[in-house]
Amino acid sequence: MQTIKLAMLGYGNAGKAFKDLLEEKAEALAEAYDTSFEFVSIVTKSKGDLLGSPNDTAIDVAQNADYDVLIELTPLNIMTGQPAISHIEAALSRGKDVITANKGPIAHAYKRLAKMAQQNGCSFLYETTVMDGTPIFNLVHDTLKFCMVTEVSGILNSTTNFILEEMEKGFPMDQILEQGRAIGFVEADPLMDIEGYDSAGKITALLNVLMDAEMTPDQVDRKGIEEISYKDIKDAASKGCKIKLVCKGWREHGKVYGRVAPEYIPLTHLYSTINGTSSILSITTDLMGKLTIIEEDPEILQTAYGVFSDLVRIVEMEEDGVIEE
Amino acid sequence: MQTIKLAMLGYGNAGKAFKDLLEEKAEALAEAYDTSFEFVSIVTKSKGDLLGSPNDTAIDVAQNADYDVLIELTPLNIMTGQPAISHIEAALSRGKDVITANKGPIAHAYKRLAKMAQQNGCSFLYETTVMDGTPIFNLVHDTLKFCMVTEVSGILNSTTNFILEEMEKGFPMDQILEQGRAIGFVEADPLMDIEGYDSAGKITALLNVLMDAEMTPDQVDRKGIEEISYKDIKDAASKGCKIKLVCKGWREHGKVYGRVAPEYIPLTHLYSTINGTSSILSITTDLMGKLTIIEEDPEILQTAYGVFSDLVRIVEMEEDGVIEE
Repeated sequence: MQTIKLAMLGYGNAGKAFKDLLEEKAEALAEAYDTSFEFVSIVTKSKGDLLGSPNDTAIDVAQNADYDVLIELTPLNIMTGQPAISHIEAALSRGKDVITANKGPIAHAYKRLAKMAQQNGCSFLYETTVMDGTPIFNLVHDTLKFCMVTEVSGILNSTTNFILEEMEKGFPMDQILEQGRAIGFVEADPLMDIEGYDSAGKITALLNVLMDAEMTPDQVDRKGIEEISYKDIKDAASKGCKIKLVCKGWREHGKVYGRVAPEYIPLTHLYSTINGTSSILSITTDLMGKLTIIEEDPEILQTAYGVFSDLVRIVEMEEDGVIEE
Repeated sequence: MQTIKLAMLGYGNAGKAFKDLLEEKAEALAEAYDTSFEFVSIVTKSKGDLLGSPNDTAIDVAQNADYDVLIELTPLNIMTGQPAISHIEAALSRGKDVITANKGPIAHAYKRLAKMAQQNGCSFLYETTVMDGTPIFNLVHDTLKFCMVTEVSGILNSTTNFILEEMEKGFPMDQILEQGRAIGFVEADPLMDIEGYDSAGKITALLNVLMDAEMTPDQVDRKGIEEISYKDIKDAASKGCKIKLVCKGWREHGKVYGRVAPEYIPLTHLYSTINGTSSILSITTDLMGKLTIIEEDPEILQTAYGVFSDLVRIVEMEEDGVIEE
């Protein structure tokens, strides 16, 4: 039985849930692939490497620890993608496989990182960066072969979706934010969501991977919901519509464009039924028309599953000899 | 460059579109896999083997022709799955790969055929049998590994979906059927659709593959839309609902159950927005919660793509050495 050594950077709820899931499935994985997994480093910002030195930081571990796969789960900086990008570069330059749940690197440096992985004969996987473990990148990669993605659109930010839904009920913004924080839908600082930066990061990640764009989030035409008032919501309702923060990406004259903006969505339209923390993504391709995938009310297990499924993929690729190290 | 020899049984719109697509992508396939494709038999009911003898029937070709992959596209008999099952058995028993777009064999004999394929070291693929080329079976197989499917539900029959939509507008059934036939939404004999047999076949196929059921369509608790009146539709509307023909499957005390029945769907629910020829399928798993996939307004190209994607899969599996013949 081979053992795959894991170094995990960041150990919040998702990291813990992933570790639990991996333990729960240890027997099944051993049986399927004759493989076991061992955490050699788990790094948190305040405590260093929980399995090593408290002085070791994430970048120290990425650069120096003896691992096979780096699990990058540090907090997102959607403006720069750092420090996750540096962690990933450190691992890939050493020929180590990388799994990230952080959309920053995909939105800021996808092409560079993917190329680096290819040149070093290792895997760089990131299924969890958009819609948690919902197969999006793998769906297109595995099951839509020879299809060209021509357009993507969706509702990808649950905080703004939640806020708009509460506004429909007539609650004022400050009360919604307070309530949202209490139940965990809303971040301490919700501006990244409200002003559409999170959505812009997600659509950029999608466009970089699925449409071969080489974009950063600041190139997305972005408008958040910060100016939406109750009057706007009532106006939409009087026209049989809801307001939703919609992400879109498309190709025009050979160039890829991204947009995030609040839109009037008719009540009879699919997108109007996406509430709370659910997300929806439509992918239009030349050969398979428009496919839409919905993730309903995800929980932390779905994030953990995304990382888990990437790890399974790495094991399978090595088994098939697709990747030679 | 290797050449893969194809025998195609049935040559209607889907078969023609598949052949066109394969020709269109010939260069890309040659480049990707160093493989070309050659049709050695194309059998129609009235003209025999268009590339061989007019006396050769589908079963003759399945049993005797010199092919590598059988493409089974003969018309569906949802009551028995025949003659498609016999064609497939003939091919598999000779160690030939099989692709079918016919749900009959999956709804009536999935387990037997899958086992036969395994024993003979060949592939048996059927992505097109539910929702055309929309990745359903491949989605679960490739991207939801280690997930257990606990429930499926959906709207899978476009004819009844179309009829119910027209009934909402107040048109009488006979007029709807006539109009539907004219635009091709409704079969010459629409009873298989209206009485829910087609839906029962699809849910059975899904349950056999995704939930390891060993069912036939007659074991599905089936109710069609034949008794739905305009009054029922108005009654539903007065309660803020539409009527949709919903398929469901679930596990209870270790046994798998299937049901097809008209249901009241609230206008705020996702399923109420699925109109015309669009379909929707929700798959609930232990690890990834509920995922929903929608195919909007499919055309014949989407059916062709399903068969094409199965063929690509066979080439890739052989490349990876997963299947040894």
